[in-house]
This record gives sequence, structure tokens and C-alpha cells, in this order.
Amino acid sequence: MAATPADVKELPGAYAFVVDMPGLGSGDIKVQVEDERVLVISGERRREEKEDARYLRMERRMGKLMRKFVLPDNADMEKVSAVCRDGVLTVSVQKLPPPEPKKPKTIQVQVA
Amino acid sequence: MAATPADVKELPGAYAFVVDMPGLGSGDIKVQVEDERVLVISGERRREEKEDARYLRMERRMGKLMRKFVLPDNADMEKVSAVCRDGVLTVSVQKLPPPEPKKPKTIQVQVA
Repeated sequence: MAATPADVKELPGAYAFVVDMPGLGSGDIKVQVEDERVLVISGERRREEKEDARYLRMERRMGKLMRKFVLPDNADMEKVSAVCRDGVLTVSVQKLPPPEPKKPKTIQVQVA
Repeated sequence: MAATPADVKELPGAYAFVVDMPGLGSGDIKVQVEDERVLVISGERRREEKEDARYLRMERRMGKLMRKFVLPDNADMEKVSAVCRDGVLTVSVQKLPPPEPKKPKTIQVQVA
């Protein structure tokens, strides 16, 4: 299970996980959220086999690729989307709205 | 100028040069034949910049990519084609037809 390079970006309203996956189309890539907090991106790259091909050079690594990312506390697991383009997968995870600031509690002063 | 992994295959009628170029579309890649014998594949990968993005992780290498391959003697420089799909570029170079076998030369025997 090989790793593949990734960038992680924080935007004002979301996190973006950008992963190089050359040779994989959107149908070859699996994006999952495990344990409610771990983003798992996986795929398998297979060499296109032709019986009559003879390899003179073979540098491109094949096989299973996987990356895991622990999501921050304010990631919204229900709002995850993924787009693949030119062999680069971008998974966007929206942020939860920040918790409402606690209003100061006013205690009424009774007249004694 | 960084390298990027490549495979080279020999097929019965052609050579295929397969190069990982994640994030590059066909418009970003240049394929040239130099000195009538050297195949040069180049491109530049730029990080998509957003002013309000903060990088939490940055593993993907950016910048110029280049690979050069000396073509075999029987490569036909006039028959080169290139296709880019899912961040993988495949350049096909057809082979020249093999030279015709020399026919045995028949010398007519004259009657003395």
C-alpha cells in the first residue's frame, strides 16, 4: 500500500485535501469517512497490460494507494464532496458553523 | 527541473512513452523532437493559489517537469502522437518499416 503526495489546505469555510492520483479516473477512487473522524482515500493503479508489449523502462509504481487524514473537530462529516481532474483528487469538507457565543446571563436584582 | 516517473514500452509496430503528469492538462504539456532523435516531454505544474488558503500540509511538488528519451534508430519521427488522460501522458512513436531484405542477385551465366 503506497502513499501518494497530498496537500491539505484550510479555507475560511472548508478544508481541502488534494491528492495526486495519476492514471486513476473517478471510478477507480474510493473516498470514505471512518470512525466519524478519519478521511480515507484509496484507489488501485494497474498497469495497462498488452500481451505484445515489452517494457524497456518501468518506473511508474502500480498497486494500491491510500491516504488517511484525521479530520479537525469542526469538520462537517455530512458535507464532504470529491472531484477528480487530470489525475488529481480534491476532497472538500465543509466546516461546521462556530458555536454561538454564550450570551451573558443577566440576574435580576430584586429589591430587598 | 524535476523528473517524473515514466514507462517505456516496445510494441510490434511502435514505441510508447508513458509519463505521470498529475494535474497537467493537455494544454500544459509540450512534446518535442530535438536533434531528430531526442523526444522531450515538458510541462509546468503550478499550485492553485487562493489568497485565503492556509496550507496545513504541502507534499505535492510543483514547478517544471521534464523527461528526455533518445529514440531508437527505427523510430519514425514523422509519426509521433500524444494523448493525455487522468494526468498520464502517452506518446506513441511509430516504427519505420524494416528495410527490405536484399534480394540475391542473379548473374546470368553466359554460354562460352
